[in-house]
Amino acid sequence: MNLEAELLVAHRLADAAREEIRPLFRAAFESERKGDASPVTEADRAAEESMRRILKAEYPQDGVIGEEFGSEQGRSGRQWVLDPIDGTISFMAGRPIFGTLIALMQDGWPVLGIIDQPIAGERWVGRIGGPTTLNERPVRTRTCKSLEEAVLATSSPHYFTSDQAEPYMALAQKVGGNERQGMIVYGGDCYNYGLLAGGHLDIVCEAGLSVYDYAALVPVVEGAGGTVSDWQGNPLDAESDGTIIALGDPARLEDVLEAMG
Amino acid sequence: MNLEAELLVAHRLADAAREEIRPLFRAAFESERKGDASPVTEADRAAEESMRRILKAEYPQDGVIGEEFGSEQGRSGRQWVLDPIDGTISFMAGRPIFGTLIALMQDGWPVLGIIDQPIAGERWVGRIGGPTTLNERPVRTRTCKSLEEAVLATSSPHYFTSDQAEPYMALAQKVGGNERQGMIVYGGDCYNYGLLAGGHLDIVCEAGLSVYDYAALVPVVEGAGGTVSDWQGNPLDAESDGTIIALGDPARLEDVLEAMG
Repeated sequence: MNLEAELLVAHRLADAAREEIRPLFRAAFESERKGDASPVTEADRAAEESMRRILKAEYPQDGVIGEEFGSEQGRSGRQWVLDPIDGTISFMAGRPIFGTLIALMQDGWPVLGIIDQPIAGERWVGRIGGPTTLNERPVRTRTCKSLEEAVLATSSPHYFTSDQAEPYMALAQKVGGNERQGMIVYGGDCYNYGLLAGGHLDIVCEAGLSVYDYAALVPVVEGAGGTVSDWQGNPLDAESDGTIIALGDPARLEDVLEAMG
Repeated sequence: MNLEAELLVAHRLADAAREEIRPLFRAAFESERKGDASPVTEADRAAEESMRRILKAEYPQDGVIGEEFGSEQGRSGRQWVLDPIDGTISFMAGRPIFGTLIALMQDGWPVLGIIDQPIAGERWVGRIGGPTTLNERPVRTRTCKSLEEAVLATSSPHYFTSDQAEPYMALAQKVGGNERQGMIVYGGDCYNYGLLAGGHLDIVCEAGLSVYDYAALVPVVEGAGGTVSDWQGNPLDAESDGTIIALGDPARLEDVLEAMG
């Protein structure tokens, strides 16, 4: 699969999103309280519109799935999947650890993904058949010999349903233990998957994600040597249930699934 | 209280800590697993030693309380309080939202505080009798008309004891409600107090903090128009119990205390 042309377009999408998002970061906050035209909504919409405009010109036959403006099916068997601001709460709170997510799916499988942090200027790019890069330099996940020495990340304890909280807590207990509570990183959304790809984290465990939240993460993590699955250990496609386990060291998948019962 | 000279020294301390910490951020990670000489331990120690060296030369009569090398009482009634890396887990995971904390206490009361983010190059400075600044520009907290519209932050749900989890969850429920779960920001440690001072967050609620974790936060938040207290509403001094409520809008203190029961 040759994705050179698509990769160039994906970079243009990320550049366009940055241009819309950057001026609104830490912008006047009072309007955030209103339902309409808050900085985060404005940035979300402007960035997605800007990206859709490029896609319409470059790949009119491809479908587009976006967080803000819904789905267009397309007729090529390919869909671009866009989340202009993943980590809305971090954006609103002024933390530079949110991200723009861009993915290309072929027949429902993610084959190219970008995680872009517009403020810090960090861009992770992953694709089938090539190494994941951070700002053009290859990155690799790290090995992890056992759950006891793992660093685990998740965005918020509130994103789990009551059924999901139990397996998550079982994993957290196994990883963190009572003496290593500090080894669990909270907050961070898509940014955590970039850090995992770079060998700074071992496990990300989340639930409740939509396809535009997870599609881009898969090629980034897998191209760096990691693995991504749902909570049953199945690979993620367009129809997944929104649970996700990302591992820097694929050898730990059985241990994680076992810990989660 | 004229603290001009002390402020210049405090800036030198923060500069010195940055110099030690920056080269070790996202450095080779394997050694983090060992007990000794991990990048985070190395950065912590080197930064605190460097700061203590400056204080010994400039203010030999003042006491020093540091996270890494304990306490020296001093004989001036003043103590410098140092935490070279607050947010160890963020540092380890490669997230640029940890901070160096520097405070000056007079008779046990914090009168000057710095929160410094070495990677993003953000420095919040607060002191009695002057406005809080971020990189030399004044910042202000924002108003918050009710808990229902507040954005709440806390570093980790695991930092609460079982007795403390209940009042925290009562506040989280009041603030976030079921439909606004996303309005609670997790992770971030001292960085959240800088964001609160800048008007991006409304409440930070934490527990289990030591004096070197909280002393610097008080002047930063209060100089920006906010208020800081323990969970009983008492101001923080060297003997506080490690619970903390920081509010951008002091008018909400009664509501928070009531929500926490």
